[in-house]
Parts: sequence; C-alpha cells; structure tokens
Amino acid sequence: MSIAAMVARRERLLGPGNPLFYEDPVHLVRGEGVWLFDADGRRYLDCYNNVPCVGHCHPKVVEALCRQAKLLNTHTRYLHENILDYAERLLGKFDGSLDRLALACTGSEANELALRIARFNTGGEGFICTNATYHGNTAAVAQISPIFEPFEGYSEAIRMVPWPDAYRPLNNLSGAALADAYADEVQRAIDSFKAKGVKFAGMLVCPIFANEGLPKVPPGYLEKAVGHVRRAGGLYVADEVQAGFGRTGRWWGHEQSGVIPDIVTLGKPMGAGHPISGVVARGELLDSFRLRQEYFNTFGGNPVSCAVAEAVLQVIEEEGLVHNAAEVGEYVLRLFQELQSRHEIIGDVRGRGLFFGMDLVSDRKTKAPASEQTKRVVNAMRHKGVLMGNIGQHGNVLKLRPPLCFSKENADFLVSALDEVLSAE
Amino acid sequence: MSIAAMVARRERLLGPGNPLFYEDPVHLVRGEGVWLFDADGRRYLDCYNNVPCVGHCHPKVVEALCRQAKLLNTHTRYLHENILDYAERLLGKFDGSLDRLALACTGSEANELALRIARFNTGGEGFICTNATYHGNTAAVAQISPIFEPFEGYSEAIRMVPWPDAYRPLNNLSGAALADAYADEVQRAIDSFKAKGVKFAGMLVCPIFANEGLPKVPPGYLEKAVGHVRRAGGLYVADEVQAGFGRTGRWWGHEQSGVIPDIVTLGKPMGAGHPISGVVARGELLDSFRLRQEYFNTFGGNPVSCAVAEAVLQVIEEEGLVHNAAEVGEYVLRLFQELQSRHEIIGDVRGRGLFFGMDLVSDRKTKAPASEQTKRVVNAMRHKGVLMGNIGQHGNVLKLRPPLCFSKENADFLVSALDEVLSAE
Repeated sequence: MSIAAMVARRERLLGPGNPLFYEDPVHLVRGEGVWLFDADGRRYLDCYNNVPCVGHCHPKVVEALCRQAKLLNTHTRYLHENILDYAERLLGKFDGSLDRLALACTGSEANELALRIARFNTGGEGFICTNATYHGNTAAVAQISPIFEPFEGYSEAIRMVPWPDAYRPLNNLSGAALADAYADEVQRAIDSFKAKGVKFAGMLVCPIFANEGLPKVPPGYLEKAVGHVRRAGGLYVADEVQAGFGRTGRWWGHEQSGVIPDIVTLGKPMGAGHPISGVVARGELLDSFRLRQEYFNTFGGNPVSCAVAEAVLQVIEEEGLVHNAAEVGEYVLRLFQELQSRHEIIGDVRGRGLFFGMDLVSDRKTKAPASEQTKRVVNAMRHKGVLMGNIGQHGNVLKLRPPLCFSKENADFLVSALDEVLSAE
Repeated sequence: MSIAAMVARRERLLGPGNPLFYEDPVHLVRGEGVWLFDADGRRYLDCYNNVPCVGHCHPKVVEALCRQAKLLNTHTRYLHENILDYAERLLGKFDGSLDRLALACTGSEANELALRIARFNTGGEGFICTNATYHGNTAAVAQISPIFEPFEGYSEAIRMVPWPDAYRPLNNLSGAALADAYADEVQRAIDSFKAKGVKFAGMLVCPIFANEGLPKVPPGYLEKAVGHVRRAGGLYVADEVQAGFGRTGRWWGHEQSGVIPDIVTLGKPMGAGHPISGVVARGELLDSFRLRQEYFNTFGGNPVSCAVAEAVLQVIEEEGLVHNAAEVGEYVLRLFQELQSRHEIIGDVRGRGLFFGMDLVSDRKTKAPASEQTKRVVNAMRHKGVLMGNIGQHGNVLKLRPPLCFSKENADFLVSALDEVLSAE
C-alpha cells in the first residue's frame, strides 16, 4: 500500500489531527539496535527515539517479555515476585529518601498521580510549571503542559515561570545573577498564589528542561528555585520521563542539579516501549496518600510489565549504557561544536549525555529562531536516512535522543549527514 | 519466600494501602485458560478476571505479542499497518455512526479522553454519573468514581444519580413507572446544573452498571435517561471497559439497552492483560477535538499493542466466545437460580452473559445486605480453589466474571463449591 493510501486510510479510521512526523511520512516495519527499516528496506539511523533506550527489539528484553507472557499476566491484587524484585532494584538507584514505588502505565498517569500525591500531602492546589513544557495529556496534566494550550483554559491553580535559559538570558544577566533572576520568578509565582488565596502545592519540572529545548541551565538555579518552593511549604516533583534511565550520562537527570526531589515520575524508556510508568517518592508522601485515597491501576505493575522493566535495567547495567551515554555523548557534543564553528545557523549546541539540542538561528547576534529552516533540516535528514525531531518554544531546536547504545561510528554517520544538510541550507 | 514475608516486603517497597485480595493473599505464578496456579502448585478456577478474556496466556495472543515485539515497537507518529488493520476490524463491530478510534493504554486514560471530548464538543462541563460507581483513577475521572471518595471533594460540575435497580426499587415502583422514576433523577440532575449555571456536557455510565452490582435495569431506563441527556444538549458516554468484548453475550454491553452511545470507552479485556485501551466515537466528535487539542499518547496504538489486540479479536471470533458467553452464561444463571431456591441468603441473582452478581441478604423481606457474610464467602471460596470478588454499594454482591472460555464443566465445579460454602454459612 502506498504512503498516500496509508495516510488516507489512517485519516478515515483515526481521523485528522493525529500527529505524524515528516512531510513524507515514514512507514516503519522493523527495528534493530539504533536502526529502523521502512517497508522498502531503507535503513534509518534512529537519533530521535529515547523510548527504545536499550536499542530497538533488544533480544534480552523481548525474551523476558515472551517468557513471562507465556507464564502469567495478572494484576497486583494477587502477590507476585516480579514487582517486588523490580521495585527493590529500581529504588536502589535513588537517594535513600526516595524509598517507595507506585506503578502505572504511562507518563501522563505518573504525572497525574504525582500531582494528586503532592496536593493531598500539602493540602494545597497551586502548581508551578514552566511556560514551554509538556507533561502529559489528561485534563489535570494538560494544565501544566502549555506547549499544547488546553481548550479548557487555565485554572487559578496554575502559574507558569520562564524556563531557565543561559543562551537567551532574562534581562541579559549571567552567572549567579541569572540563576537568581529565574528563581525569583518562582518566588513571584508563589507570592501570586498567596495574593489570590490559592494554597501552594508545589513545582513540577523536568530536571533537564527537555521540552523547553534542553537549555544550559544557569548553575544553582534549581537549588534556589526548589529552596523557594520548600520554604513556601511546596513539594518538588521531578518529571524524569525523558531524563531518566541513563539518558543524561547519569541514572537520573536530577543528579546533576544538586537537588533531591520529593517525588519523581518515570515513563518512556522504563519498559523500552512496553507501557509501564512509575512514581518514586518519599515513603511518607505516597503512604499517607494511599491510606486515604484508594489507588489501583489494573495493568500497572503486572508481572509482564515488571519482567520487561527489570530486563531493561539489567541490559543498561550489563552493557554499561549509562557510561556509554556519557562517553559517546561527549564525543557527539565535540563534533557538534566543530559543526557550529563552520555553520552560522547553529546558534547554540547543548548536550546532556545522549540528549542534544541544537539551537538554529537566522542571526547569531539577535539569536532569532530559525524555525522554518529547522523543519527543513529535519525533513532533509529523514531523506538522508537519519531520524531526529525539533522542539522548543519556537520549534527551532533540533532534538536528538538516540538509543543509549549509540556508538561513535553512529555519531560520525549522523554528523556527516548533518554537515551536508546544513551546507545546503 | 513465605506469604507473610512477601507481604512485608511489599509493604516496605510499595507501602501500605495497596489493595490485596483475601485474608490469606494468593501468590500466583502461572495461568492457563480458566485456571491459575499458586507457588505451591495449587490450582484455582478463575471466576473473577475479565481481563484475560480469551483465557490466561492464550497461545495465539502470546505468539502475536512475541512476533511483533521481535520486529518493531514504536509510536504512531510513524506509519504502521497494525493500528490501521486493528481499527478497521474493531470499528466494524460497532454501529456505523461510531466510526473513529483513538487508542490509549488504560481505562482511566480512555475515560479521561472521553470526558475531554464531550466537554470540548458541548462547551459544557457538567457530567452525570451514578452514586455507586468507579471509572478510573485520574483527578477528573475520580470525580465520577464515588466508590472511592476523592480527597479533593466534588466539584460543582458533577451530579450523581441513583443507579437503576429493580431489586431494591426507588419508591417501591416497578415496570415503566420505575424506569421513569430513575430517568426523572437524571432530568433532576440536569435541572440542577441549569439552576447552578453549570453548562451540561453529558452522562457517563457503564451500560450494564457493573460496579453498581450488575442490577436488573428497569426496561427502557437507558433510552429514557439518554433521551433527557440529549434533549439537554449532552452526550452519552458508555464505559464498556468491563462490559465490552463479548462479556455480556453480545459484543458490547450497550447493545442490550437499545441506545447507541455518542462515545464508547474500552479497556481491560482489549489486550487480554496487555495495556491497551481506546475511545470509539462519532467521527465529528473526535475529529473536532483532535483538530483543536493536540492529543498524543506515546505508547497508545503501538504496533505490539495492536498486534495483541488484533489477536484477541481473532480468538474471540475463531473460538465463538461471544456465543459461549451467552450459552454458558445462561447455564450458570439457571444453576445459580437453583442455588437461590435452597439458600435463603441469596436474595437476588443477576447475569449478563458471563458476568454475574449474586446479592446476599440477611433477610429476604427487608433485603438487608449481608456484607460480612459476603466477605466470608469470598474468602472461603478461595480456600476451595475458586477465585471471585464482591462489589456493590454495600459490598454484598458476589462478583463473577470468568474468562470467556468458561465451560459448563467449569460452571458445575464453581456451583458445587459455592453450594458447600453457602451451606456452611
């Protein structure tokens, strides 16, 4: 079936408005490691997908899935060892204060649960997020996902703060003064809740501000902002749905910020594509919530999901993927910086492990976002056999998050293609 | 590891407040067809779990899962045929007016999405549910799930109506007058929204009122109630998370009610335990929503989930499980009625295909709920090797929803055990 026929069939069955990548959509049929293959046998280097963190269709993950699916798949109102073994192994990777796990199926569900836990424990409602982020698709989580403005409008319980950005800095400040200025915005939001009589509950942010375009965060910002939050009686929820599981070259994105969150949410790479997500929290926060509010998730924590998630942790450890993300990540960053020295359009290059943002500008002085060119680059790269995306408030940041088994050889392939595409711009 | 040690370990890792069945929890390790096996090799007849609708670990479902998991698992922003094939096959089982599908991962997500679609399309907020139901665990869906009172309290946008019950009827009415009386309660809720200045959006109910205890619904009730809803500009959302996929002896629970919903939500049995859920709606409702509100679900509709869900549909068709649910369901109902003639405690027996409610009472005249005895029966049946649950506003309704491959022989085993347990009460 032709691509056009598939798109028409999709429109008829699923309707319009379903997001689809690329001007010429890609029809994928197979994946292996960092490679994806389309129906014509064409190969693509996957530089976009963080979900298959251990590589597409990793044999050990598939084997764990099949083995448990043949044995038993049921819910957590019966006892099963898989959820306990997984919880033990996963919690062992967090600071000792984060000692309880609740499992769900999607990142949206994890953030829903985190909001409810924080609101229950603080007795407040007011939440702070940034002004260019996304945390999920439910009504409550859409309130803190301004990238896609919710049709419901925003409630009085939400305040948005500017995301911390050292490339286009607030008031042209830098260093500690810049971190202070962004943290002051958090304090202003807290004050504004007070003025409106909304009791404050907390702040929910991605610790690496992935959807904001992976900015260079002014050093000390999160410590200062979270300090304001905690002094006002609020909780700090770190959304690790993108940053977690080794992506940044450390196990968790929040490790680089110097602040231990009160609640952490997990998702995407957790099951390498199998729908599993989770909330890790300080015990007293989760326990008091659960003792008051029955929370049950039919598929959450089932033996198959836990077998898959455990296999993902094992592979990350056995193959040294956190270290690989750090090492190959540095290598890619150096190559990107070298590209930047030759391509005027690259205004800024950011990286955290194997997560990269390349900020394209039409003018390095004004730093005006090159939004249209960024789209063209993404589409041109697809035709060169490299998959990536774009992100950020103006859509002008190339977004790259390859599987964690990405090699230096893969990086050379990527950079050579990108060099060609940028040269043609 | 002993049961006590597992429970302690569970408490330490997951915290208290995690629902766990039975006074002596069951540690399951294997499932096959209608049977579950614990760590000591003991066999249990599964009369509770509707999720593994085609039987535990059905080889064709496991095979489809493993085949696709080895090939590719990615999201719907690339094209893939599995989601299109599945959507075509699934939509073919609905009335022609219900012609669009959106996929998610859990029943809560499906009901979240349905609420947002209905609120967007009506421009209203007010929703009606019954006063003894459950539809999911997110903040918005918890508002229409009064079985577990939300700590947030209820908003002005929610009204609860008495569930339609011919066994303990409103004002001792019967027949058409009873249906009218219950439907009048829906009209009263609509009027009350108007009085409070809340624009009405719709009604969301399970078409067989599963969580309410599977009552005998007064004939014509839903047609009348939905008539009121539609005249007031509201939409009717049918939650088929429990009733769907052949459970009632028809494909969908709403088929028996004579009313075609505007929106249908699907979940639990859809992937026989694999996390997949969906919203089926009239095209214009879903389309207008999606064109305004970006909705994306990372795991929703992925090739693996769709392969599994397609295999579930195939098995239901190939093995004639809808017909089996109707036929064996009738057989079980006759046996239950025979039990009722010999056991005073059985006040009422209800059945829809392979879904049963047995209403236990301490006095047949007053119909006083025998809540404590019901718990004892459930625990005693577990020791006899039969798994079931209890439900309803007073917890006094035995709830049975075996896999759809349940046989007459299985039914004889169940009824014989239940006869012994009730005789000992």
